[in-house]
Amino acid sequence: MPAFSANLDANSDQVSPVLFLCYDDVTFLDLAGPMQVFHAANTLRRKIGKVAPYQIKLVARAAGQVKTDVGVHIEANSWQDTIVSDRGIIIVPGGPGVWDSETQASVRDYLCAQPQEVEIASVCIGAFLLGHAGLLRGKQAVTHWKYCSRLQADFPETRVNADSIFIRDGGIWTSAGVTAGIDLALAIVERDFGHTLAADIARGLVVFLKRTGGQSQYSKILETQAGIPDGRLSDLHAWISDNLHKPLPTETLAEQLGMSTRSFVRYYVSKTGTTPRKAVENLRVDTAKRMLLDYPLLSIKRIADKCGFQGEERMRRTFVRQFGSTPSEYRENFGPTQQ
Amino acid sequence: MPAFSANLDANSDQVSPVLFLCYDDVTFLDLAGPMQVFHAANTLRRKIGKVAPYQIKLVARAAGQVKTDVGVHIEANSWQDTIVSDRGIIIVPGGPGVWDSETQASVRDYLCAQPQEVEIASVCIGAFLLGHAGLLRGKQAVTHWKYCSRLQADFPETRVNADSIFIRDGGIWTSAGVTAGIDLALAIVERDFGHTLAADIARGLVVFLKRTGGQSQYSKILETQAGIPDGRLSDLHAWISDNLHKPLPTETLAEQLGMSTRSFVRYYVSKTGTTPRKAVENLRVDTAKRMLLDYPLLSIKRIADKCGFQGEERMRRTFVRQFGSTPSEYRENFGPTQQ
Repeated sequence: MPAFSANLDANSDQVSPVLFLCYDDVTFLDLAGPMQVFHAANTLRRKIGKVAPYQIKLVARAAGQVKTDVGVHIEANSWQDTIVSDRGIIIVPGGPGVWDSETQASVRDYLCAQPQEVEIASVCIGAFLLGHAGLLRGKQAVTHWKYCSRLQADFPETRVNADSIFIRDGGIWTSAGVTAGIDLALAIVERDFGHTLAADIARGLVVFLKRTGGQSQYSKILETQAGIPDGRLSDLHAWISDNLHKPLPTETLAEQLGMSTRSFVRYYVSKTGTTPRKAVENLRVDTAKRMLLDYPLLSIKRIADKCGFQGEERMRRTFVRQFGSTPSEYRENFGPTQQ
Repeated sequence: MPAFSANLDANSDQVSPVLFLCYDDVTFLDLAGPMQVFHAANTLRRKIGKVAPYQIKLVARAAGQVKTDVGVHIEANSWQDTIVSDRGIIIVPGGPGVWDSETQASVRDYLCAQPQEVEIASVCIGAFLLGHAGLLRGKQAVTHWKYCSRLQADFPETRVNADSIFIRDGGIWTSAGVTAGIDLALAIVERDFGHTLAADIARGLVVFLKRTGGQSQYSKILETQAGIPDGRLSDLHAWISDNLHKPLPTETLAEQLGMSTRSFVRYYVSKTGTTPRKAVENLRVDTAKRMLLDYPLLSIKRIADKCGFQGEERMRRTFVRQFGSTPSEYRENFGPTQQ
C-alpha cells in the first residue's frame, strides 16, 4: 500500500492507531471534536460487523493527568510507551500550551522520532508545534485565522493558505481554528472508508460534511487601520470612514495628504503593508459587516450605498470573494439569535 | 432580577455557576463543546478587565473519575458537595449512559432537589434525563433528530419540535444532536452578555453564531417506506420509485391497488401514519438527495426532472421548506470533499 493514500481498506479488518497528543493547557474542544469523529467511525463500523478500525489513544510526555485549558483533567498514556505503526496517525491539537518552549521541544523530539510513514495532523494552533518540529517546511498549511500571519512569519518556508478549513500536503494535515478539527477528522475517515460513512458520522454529530466557504467568513476582517502609530494615517482613515459613501479613488486620498499619487502609494504601502485601494475596500467591507448585524432592518441595498459599494451586486461579489458567502448569509449566520 | 431572563448584567461582576453533569458513558463532545464556549466567555471578559462570569464545574454522583463514551476519563466533583445558586445553570449532556436506569434515577433526584430558579439545559439525548425528572412536562423540547419521535413517545406531555437546533421554554433549555450543544451555549452567553461577545466566541471557535436551517437538514429523510410489513404497500412503493418522473396523483396510486381514492387514502394513512401525497414527496426528496450526492456532475434541473418535481424551482422550494437549504447547498454540504 503506498504511503499517504488510503490508510485502510474499507473491507479490511486492519486496525490503525490514532494518537492524540496532549500537553498542559491543550484546548479541550480541539481534542474532543476529532476524537468523537474517530469514535463514531468505530461504532458505525462495529454495527455492520466490522472491526473498530481506529485504536484511539491519548498520549503525553508522561503518563498521568493532563490539565486542559478549560480546567478539566484527562488521563493520558506516556508517549514513550506507545508505538505508532506505519499506518498510524498522530493528531496534534492546539491550545495556549503551544507557546510553551518546553512543550515545543518535547513534541519536536517525539514527532521527529516517528517513522516517515506516520501521518501527522494538527488542529488550530497545533500547527505551530508541527512548525517547530520542522514538519511544515516546503508544505502548504493552515491554522486559526487569527494566527495565520504569525505562522507565515515564524515559518517562512511554509505556504500558509489562510482561508482553508483544512489542508493535506503529503503526510501532513493541518486545519483551521478549533472546530475545524472535526472537519479534518471527517476528511480522514472519508479518505479511509469513503463518503457514506463520513456523511453518516456528520449527520450523527449534526455537522456538515463539507462547509461552504472558507474559515475567513468566521473571522473579522483584518483591520489595516488598527494600531498604526502615524497621526497622518489615522486622520486619513477617519476621513475615509466619514466619506465612505463617496467614490474614493487613490488620487483623492493622496490629495488629502497633499502628496502626489505615486509617493502616497509608496508611503501608504510602507506604513501599512497594503495598498490604499485594498484598505478602502477593507473599510467598506468592515463597515458593511457591522451594519448588517447592528441594523437588521436596513436593506442590503441601503447598506451597500452607505458603504460606497456602488450597488448591491458589487457588495455581494466582494463578500463572496472575501468570505465565500453573501451579505444576507453573513447576516443570517452572525446576526442576533431569534428564538 | 426576574427568574429566567438575563442571568447576568453585562456590567456586573457577578459570578454564575455552570455545572456540567457527568455520568458514565457521557458523550465527550456533548460536554466539551458547551464547556469551551463558557470558558471562552470567561477569557474574553477577563481580557476587558471584568471578572470571569461563569464558574465552570464538572459534577457527578460521586467525586472521582468518570468514563466518557470515547474512553477518556475525566475528573468530576461530587454533586452533593456542590451548591448551585439561584443564578446557576446545570448542563446535562447526552450519551449512551442516558439509557442506564440508575443514572436516570440519580439524575432525577439531583435535578428535582434544585431550587426552581436554577436553569436546566440538555444537549442531544440528555433531554431524556430531563424527561425522566419530569422537567419536560408541558414544555417544548428537542433532542437529536434520530431520537425525536422516541422522546415524543416516552414523554407525551412534551411538545417535541424536531427541527430546532435548540429550544428555550421558561427555565428549561434543550438542544439538538451533539454539536448543537455549542449553539445552545452561545445562545446562553448571548442572552447574558449580548450579541458581540457571543459573536466573538463563535468566530474564535470557527462556528456560526446562528446556523441557517434546522437540524433536519443534517438528518436523512424519514423513510416512510422502510419496514412496513405489507406486501401490497411494498409493491406500490416499488412502483412509485420506478415511475417517479411522472405525475403521481393519489387517484393513480389508488388505481394501482384497485381501490377507490377515499378507501385508499384511509388505508394508506392507517398503515403508514402519513398521506400518500406526503409519501410521494418524501420519496422524491429522498431520491433527489441521493442523486445530488451520487451524481455530482448531473445538473439540478435534470435531477428535478428525474425525480418528478416538475421543475427546478419546485424542487428548490421543497428542499428549502424541508431542510432550510437549497439542493445546491445540500450537495455542497454533504457531497464528497474535494481537496
